[in-house]
Amino acid sequence: MKKQNKTLRVELGERSYPIYIGPGLLADAEIYRRHIHNRQVMIVTNETVAPLYLAQVQGALQSFVVETVVLPDGESYKTLAIWDRIFDKLLSSRFGRQSTIIALGGGVIGDMAGFAAACYQRGVNFVQIPTTLLAQVDSSVGGKTGVNHPAGKNMIGAFYQPKCVIADTDTLNTLDDRQLSAGISEIIKYGLIDDPSFFRWLEANMDALLERDPTALTFAIERSCQDKARVVAADELEAGSRALLNLGHTFVHAIEAGLGYGEWLHGEAVAAGMCMAADLSRRIGWLSAEEQERIVTLIKRARLPHEPPRSITAEQFLDLMAVDKKVMDGRVRLILMKAVGESVITDEFDSVKLLETLNEYRSDDL
Amino acid sequence: MKKQNKTLRVELGERSYPIYIGPGLLADAEIYRRHIHNRQVMIVTNETVAPLYLAQVQGALQSFVVETVVLPDGESYKTLAIWDRIFDKLLSSRFGRQSTIIALGGGVIGDMAGFAAACYQRGVNFVQIPTTLLAQVDSSVGGKTGVNHPAGKNMIGAFYQPKCVIADTDTLNTLDDRQLSAGISEIIKYGLIDDPSFFRWLEANMDALLERDPTALTFAIERSCQDKARVVAADELEAGSRALLNLGHTFVHAIEAGLGYGEWLHGEAVAAGMCMAADLSRRIGWLSAEEQERIVTLIKRARLPHEPPRSITAEQFLDLMAVDKKVMDGRVRLILMKAVGESVITDEFDSVKLLETLNEYRSDDL
Repeated sequence: MKKQNKTLRVELGERSYPIYIGPGLLADAEIYRRHIHNRQVMIVTNETVAPLYLAQVQGALQSFVVETVVLPDGESYKTLAIWDRIFDKLLSSRFGRQSTIIALGGGVIGDMAGFAAACYQRGVNFVQIPTTLLAQVDSSVGGKTGVNHPAGKNMIGAFYQPKCVIADTDTLNTLDDRQLSAGISEIIKYGLIDDPSFFRWLEANMDALLERDPTALTFAIERSCQDKARVVAADELEAGSRALLNLGHTFVHAIEAGLGYGEWLHGEAVAAGMCMAADLSRRIGWLSAEEQERIVTLIKRARLPHEPPRSITAEQFLDLMAVDKKVMDGRVRLILMKAVGESVITDEFDSVKLLETLNEYRSDDL
Repeated sequence: MKKQNKTLRVELGERSYPIYIGPGLLADAEIYRRHIHNRQVMIVTNETVAPLYLAQVQGALQSFVVETVVLPDGESYKTLAIWDRIFDKLLSSRFGRQSTIIALGGGVIGDMAGFAAACYQRGVNFVQIPTTLLAQVDSSVGGKTGVNHPAGKNMIGAFYQPKCVIADTDTLNTLDDRQLSAGISEIIKYGLIDDPSFFRWLEANMDALLERDPTALTFAIERSCQDKARVVAADELEAGSRALLNLGHTFVHAIEAGLGYGEWLHGEAVAAGMCMAADLSRRIGWLSAEEQERIVTLIKRARLPHEPPRSITAEQFLDLMAVDKKVMDGRVRLILMKAVGESVITDEFDSVKLLETLNEYRSDDL
């Protein structure tokens, strides 16, 4: 493996696995040989990624029996019905329970292929090749897999860990600017949760990231995965502290459900959600106006939305937030900020302040 | 709890749980209070069981918020599409991740409700109330959940353990004779796997079981669950020895897929599958003709089929067996018998002998 590549280990006992980060990894046959011990390999990818990277991956898998499922591209296809196509292909190819599923694509492909790996014959091997920045820094760590239900995002799924993750930074060269920014949104989130020095690094290096400087990108991916792995290792099944990773996400899910999945990229909704969380954190006296401004400024510099779409009313927000998974028995719990780089899970906030935040984003230009 | 009731503990570390066995347990509010610690409870049942037992269970759950999903009855409805209805109801009822799903019904309901519990918001609490003899002695132990795919049975699923199992023997009073025999088939299987003294007990007590003698039934359920729990505890995720529980099942799945799911009851197919395994075991010199005869005789006494449907040819069998989950990389593995009460997993058998067994059941009356 080349010198500039990094290997990070996610420590989860017997479910521990490595994340390989760097250029040229997609075509590294040695990685596949190390983690795939049976011949049958099913690549799950989509119509956008297949023409770009499928041949390279297939080329590195010449010692295996390889089949491929190409799914349509987009969050709107993350459904049980499309998921079922993976089983159609596995069964028509007569794949056994020792086979391996490889996810080649962004977060949607990773979620669907991982959930199929979790459920095919009650669990087969899984290898993840995230090809977007967001997937590299988000779904690389944590084992969350699943599909959407018309009534809510990621409502059907499983926790399932891969054997390894291959984050090839070369794949970011074909990412459009909007997708790049969406990934940076998730990176900013790790700084906000519990890594203030990483947040400062992002303030200093945002321009380099936007210019796709390889050294900056590799550092940001590694640091993000480390930050996420630390949170996940402490709480694999999300009984408690892992929910910190959902900073902004109660707002995010409401934005996505309100607009219809796929209108905004997930990372874009996360950016707006973090700004809303910052706004509420300031209103309840936890965050200073200056800290809120630092957050909003960095998000704007990353070319991300700093407020929700004005078409969603405060009433719609409240309604949509109530079916979010972060709800415990009817009580809304949010992740809010005590400071930049110090977030907490809480249901101790004034509902009036929450309404003020929700109304903030429709008060002026209507 | 009444004196004649038994409690058996399935030991699986932090996933250990009790099985309550005996009459009148369905309506015992104390059991539900002991194992359900949140208010939202979803009962999943079917059109046959609901009129018989739903009201009793609801009556015992008066301190909870209870919703119900009534699914159509039958193996042919064990599909992803029907499974999705459980999520429709969970989401329209705004159930959170602390909610509990109760399976009230036979094996199909247990498999679908358990799989929904495994996947709803990536896992919620699960309580099982098996109402058939087969479900009480089979799905009570082991945590196997899932749905069928048109190309294969139980191909999509998860290992997921309940918080407790309530095996109310009163529910067996409404079971028809064919269903009773199907349950006894699975009970005979435990004797054959590794419990020769239980097999002898069954030879002595088959008439009592068929007459639904409560003492005989309670003993048989308890012993079956103990036998199964011992095998499962040794190998929870079916990496090895747990496959013993699939005695006869490679033939079974071929019978079920060949006839179409639901033509034969699962236990009926298991009975024929065990006789086929005994036949092959005798042909390779492991089982004596007398031992084979003891097995066939007991199965006939239980009013169960001792041979597969003659409409399935040897060629169809071989084809259908190749997609069975017990296949490792193309090589067929079977569970065969060294003696009555001593089964082993093996791929060391002569394919010619297997063909002889498959042909045995179409050689004479065609």
